[in-house]
Amino acid sequence: MTANTPSQRAQRWLDAFGAALASGNPYNVLPLFDADCYWRDLVSFTWNIRTQEGHDAVRDMLAARQADTAASNFQLEGEATEADGVTEAWFTFETRVSRGRGHLRLKGDKAWTLLTTMVELKGFEEKKGANRIKGAEHGVHKGRKSWLELRQDEQARLGYEDQPYVVIIGGGQGGIILAARLRRLGVPTIVVEKNPRPGDSWRNRYKSLCLHDPVWYDHLPYMPFPDDWPVFAPKDKVGDWLEMYTKVMEINYWGSTTAKKASYDEAKGEWTVVVDRNGEEVTLRPKQLVFALGVSGYPNVPKIPGAETFEGDQHHSSKHPGPEKYAGKKAVVLGSNNSAHDICAALWEHGADVTMIQRSSTHIAPSNSLMELALGGLYSEEALKNGIDHHKADLIFASVPYKIMHTFHIPVYEEMKKRDADLYSRLEKAGFLLDFGDDGSGLFMKYLRRGSGYYIDVGASELVANGSIKLKSGVNIERINPKSVLLTDGTELPADLIVYATGYGSMNHWLADLVSPEVADRVGKVWGLGSSTTKDPGPWEGELRNMWKPTNQQQLWIHGGNLHQSRHYSQFLSLQLKARYEGLDTPVYGQAAVHHLR
Amino acid sequence: MTANTPSQRAQRWLDAFGAALASGNPYNVLPLFDADCYWRDLVSFTWNIRTQEGHDAVRDMLAARQADTAASNFQLEGEATEADGVTEAWFTFETRVSRGRGHLRLKGDKAWTLLTTMVELKGFEEKKGANRIKGAEHGVHKGRKSWLELRQDEQARLGYEDQPYVVIIGGGQGGIILAARLRRLGVPTIVVEKNPRPGDSWRNRYKSLCLHDPVWYDHLPYMPFPDDWPVFAPKDKVGDWLEMYTKVMEINYWGSTTAKKASYDEAKGEWTVVVDRNGEEVTLRPKQLVFALGVSGYPNVPKIPGAETFEGDQHHSSKHPGPEKYAGKKAVVLGSNNSAHDICAALWEHGADVTMIQRSSTHIAPSNSLMELALGGLYSEEALKNGIDHHKADLIFASVPYKIMHTFHIPVYEEMKKRDADLYSRLEKAGFLLDFGDDGSGLFMKYLRRGSGYYIDVGASELVANGSIKLKSGVNIERINPKSVLLTDGTELPADLIVYATGYGSMNHWLADLVSPEVADRVGKVWGLGSSTTKDPGPWEGELRNMWKPTNQQQLWIHGGNLHQSRHYSQFLSLQLKARYEGLDTPVYGQAAVHHLR
Repeated sequence: MTANTPSQRAQRWLDAFGAALASGNPYNVLPLFDADCYWRDLVSFTWNIRTQEGHDAVRDMLAARQADTAASNFQLEGEATEADGVTEAWFTFETRVSRGRGHLRLKGDKAWTLLTTMVELKGFEEKKGANRIKGAEHGVHKGRKSWLELRQDEQARLGYEDQPYVVIIGGGQGGIILAARLRRLGVPTIVVEKNPRPGDSWRNRYKSLCLHDPVWYDHLPYMPFPDDWPVFAPKDKVGDWLEMYTKVMEINYWGSTTAKKASYDEAKGEWTVVVDRNGEEVTLRPKQLVFALGVSGYPNVPKIPGAETFEGDQHHSSKHPGPEKYAGKKAVVLGSNNSAHDICAALWEHGADVTMIQRSSTHIAPSNSLMELALGGLYSEEALKNGIDHHKADLIFASVPYKIMHTFHIPVYEEMKKRDADLYSRLEKAGFLLDFGDDGSGLFMKYLRRGSGYYIDVGASELVANGSIKLKSGVNIERINPKSVLLTDGTELPADLIVYATGYGSMNHWLADLVSPEVADRVGKVWGLGSSTTKDPGPWEGELRNMWKPTNQQQLWIHGGNLHQSRHYSQFLSLQLKARYEGLDTPVYGQAAVHHLR
Repeated sequence: MTANTPSQRAQRWLDAFGAALASGNPYNVLPLFDADCYWRDLVSFTWNIRTQEGHDAVRDMLAARQADTAASNFQLEGEATEADGVTEAWFTFETRVSRGRGHLRLKGDKAWTLLTTMVELKGFEEKKGANRIKGAEHGVHKGRKSWLELRQDEQARLGYEDQPYVVIIGGGQGGIILAARLRRLGVPTIVVEKNPRPGDSWRNRYKSLCLHDPVWYDHLPYMPFPDDWPVFAPKDKVGDWLEMYTKVMEINYWGSTTAKKASYDEAKGEWTVVVDRNGEEVTLRPKQLVFALGVSGYPNVPKIPGAETFEGDQHHSSKHPGPEKYAGKKAVVLGSNNSAHDICAALWEHGADVTMIQRSSTHIAPSNSLMELALGGLYSEEALKNGIDHHKADLIFASVPYKIMHTFHIPVYEEMKKRDADLYSRLEKAGFLLDFGDDGSGLFMKYLRRGSGYYIDVGASELVANGSIKLKSGVNIERINPKSVLLTDGTELPADLIVYATGYGSMNHWLADLVSPEVADRVGKVWGLGSSTTKDPGPWEGELRNMWKPTNQQQLWIHGGNLHQSRHYSQFLSLQLKARYEGLDTPVYGQAAVHHLR
């Protein structure tokens, strides 16, 4: 048995894999893969984010890319493990231009899933640890400038005398995190944000908002939260953290700045981005333009007949000021996802009479169950004790191919159904329309496929179940009157306030607004996997559309996602940008076709 | 041999130690200690910071304290090691009221050095890791307040409707770090600082200043610097970090606030502290008062005849604005320690004609040698690779008793003398008066004994050696004329600028100013070990006088030191304050006598 430990099996596979790659013949590699195989590559082979599904896809990718990639030196990292007939192993490797890290799952002696990720570009490593800068220039130097002077010079020049290589539109968490990585890589970057201060996009949200994901899932790169950070951080605390992070990471952050127009000059290979900076019009000319305006950035406000006649307050959830002024008032909240529930609960807490209008079924995931059943193995104190910090957890998460991810999730939600059966049955009795996703795969798959359709229950479901929050389900608002709303079932509800908790439009609405409808259509639909489930039309793409990878518009990129995704995928987007900044050859393999316009 | 591994030997000792303690008879403990023994206790046995030197001191302390302390459960932590006949081991233990961590050095089977430190008070642990707060209150609660509202309420009330338990005077690094620990322990605290923003005490220093200690030595508690932080951080970057830290640690920091008067009311057992907060007089009534105004806080400006007639600029080094306006001018810098060298070099770089007046000999420690020879084993990338992070390094550092610390240091400086012989010989040729401390133990012992007398060379020594910075040594300024200074050897130097780089007075000058001369004298000399070396008069005390431990003035404490000391000793000061806040019995053993007044 000692002759065939999991580690020996994994190293043998890695050796064979390295030898097969070195042979230059992709067909030599295929026998190492199970027929049911997935090779997910984050930039290191493909200069793309792409999953090769099955033998043919692996063969085609290697035929196109291995000669140039010259991947080699596959080394087991730590000890491999085995459970349920699957051997799992970590490894390091290098390519001609980069160093990488990977994860392998073997079924028997053959690869079932393979993950390859780029960690750093050779010769362009971050200056950290033993390679950090000295800070003080020892010795004496006539005319030397201090750190403060150099920083002030940079801030005064960048965007005027000096052009940034990258402009990031949107200075929320995504833009800030990406800018931090680019700063460490030495890529001149400006972040453009309409709010005055970093963190304002959190501060401006409704008062009761806390992160719905737990702290272990939410760390920013380079600077983890202290170990007393709350499990679910309140929005203003997150706002302060982002502001401080932006400052200490020395990000060139232009607050109170609105992007007005962006256009790409094909001949020059550069963008012209016109912004209003505190009332001053400034034209930026970056080579690369990143949209980081948020999965949830473009408010969806339905057009309802009579809305203009309404005499009370009406606004999208993103503009909701909080419950204080609505005590004793009649509130109607249209929608039944996270924001709708949070807003209904806060209004009820402050003595409003609240009715939720549920148009279609919603997935309810009780927070405690979600933390324990879905996230606990990777992101928790328990995981930390098992040696899984968020760096490792992110890679484990990334190692599960989207094609089979739902099969990992379905059992979790089966368990949740049992565990929270009482709540679910009371919700149904109250008329609430429940679902667990088309295939029962629950919250995270809904998030990936459509970015909506769920509530992480932190208490409001109880209020719905017990009738404190009134519910009208399976209906919509047909017409708005001056002092009421008329529902499609004929009910008329008196109303002093209407909140449209109706979600957000696709990120590429921003492209249409800021660049052009043509470019928005060239880029196509953003987000979604092509799973052919509700709101995620096929064909199957196998990765999130247009996220963190080359789009069909040259030098235009889209960045975003929750804190976990922003942290993890910013690594790969920043390396793609750095490679281009340094003039490396970056042939993109398997550029996705566009099947859906805006 | 396997029957007597270092770990077995250490565990055997710990078992015997535990049994002897449990016997209740101190004489049973003594056979476990070498005749040449040192037991350093940080709060856990003594509610003091105290080193017991020799059998009698160990016996006396145990006779007084073990019954109450009830120390038990001594457990080896990790594997013990052995080198040069000395076995080293880490261990954990508990007392009736606390949990602790310790370090042991055995010579043969007997203890040579023993360190016991308090880590946390039972029932009053920091809410971190698995015990962190949830942040979001799940469920719904009528009238709930958000984090922001609660924080704003606290800030509005504290110091007015609600009194803080602790007031810290001085909001530099020391005050901020201590306040962060007290915050985590839930002790209501206000930090009073004359400058507007946290970090200003760094920002206001001369432009070229960088930390003289390397990054691995300088981490603040709870939130280490990111791994790209420069080895020697520039002062403004440190300032920004402190500002950010203060904010995210939620410290109640009163900037632009000057403490005007403090007095202790014995009957009420509380302080009255009158402060000017932005022009408003506020009276604070804390139970505990901490002075954190800095080892280097009280400028020493010599009174020199004729100074009032000088027509150029003259100021203490702490007020030096930087070199820009002195190009082409004649500068005289009185002093030859760190600030003097830094200021001379910056003036020379900016084209001033600079003369350094060296009054007495100075220890020069070239930065690179100091990092490698003195700090590298504990605070460096190399140390990190060896598993020694700053937490562990701090304890190793603390485990060396002051009585024998110089014997650990002398070989380091012997090596430095060889390594940097060329520089030293050229400095001597230029007339520079060199020393390595009275006993050749170098920089850190000078720092502990007298807090002065050295320059960590980052380049200026070369300028002194080659004559770029002119030198007059073994002299002082006898008189100042309108356009020149007259030295004690009769030389007259024309001068447009005089910088008094003459160091700082004892911390307890602040006590005399803010409380009363009587209280300052009751507390006595601050800092120094009583080593009977230059500027550190005996008798031997064995710990830094009055630092981080009870003083002879009830409820008055002194905190400070470099970043390493502020980080490490704030743990013990905060636990002493927390114990009193919670009403625990804290009998202080071995209160030091006062031998020196201000």
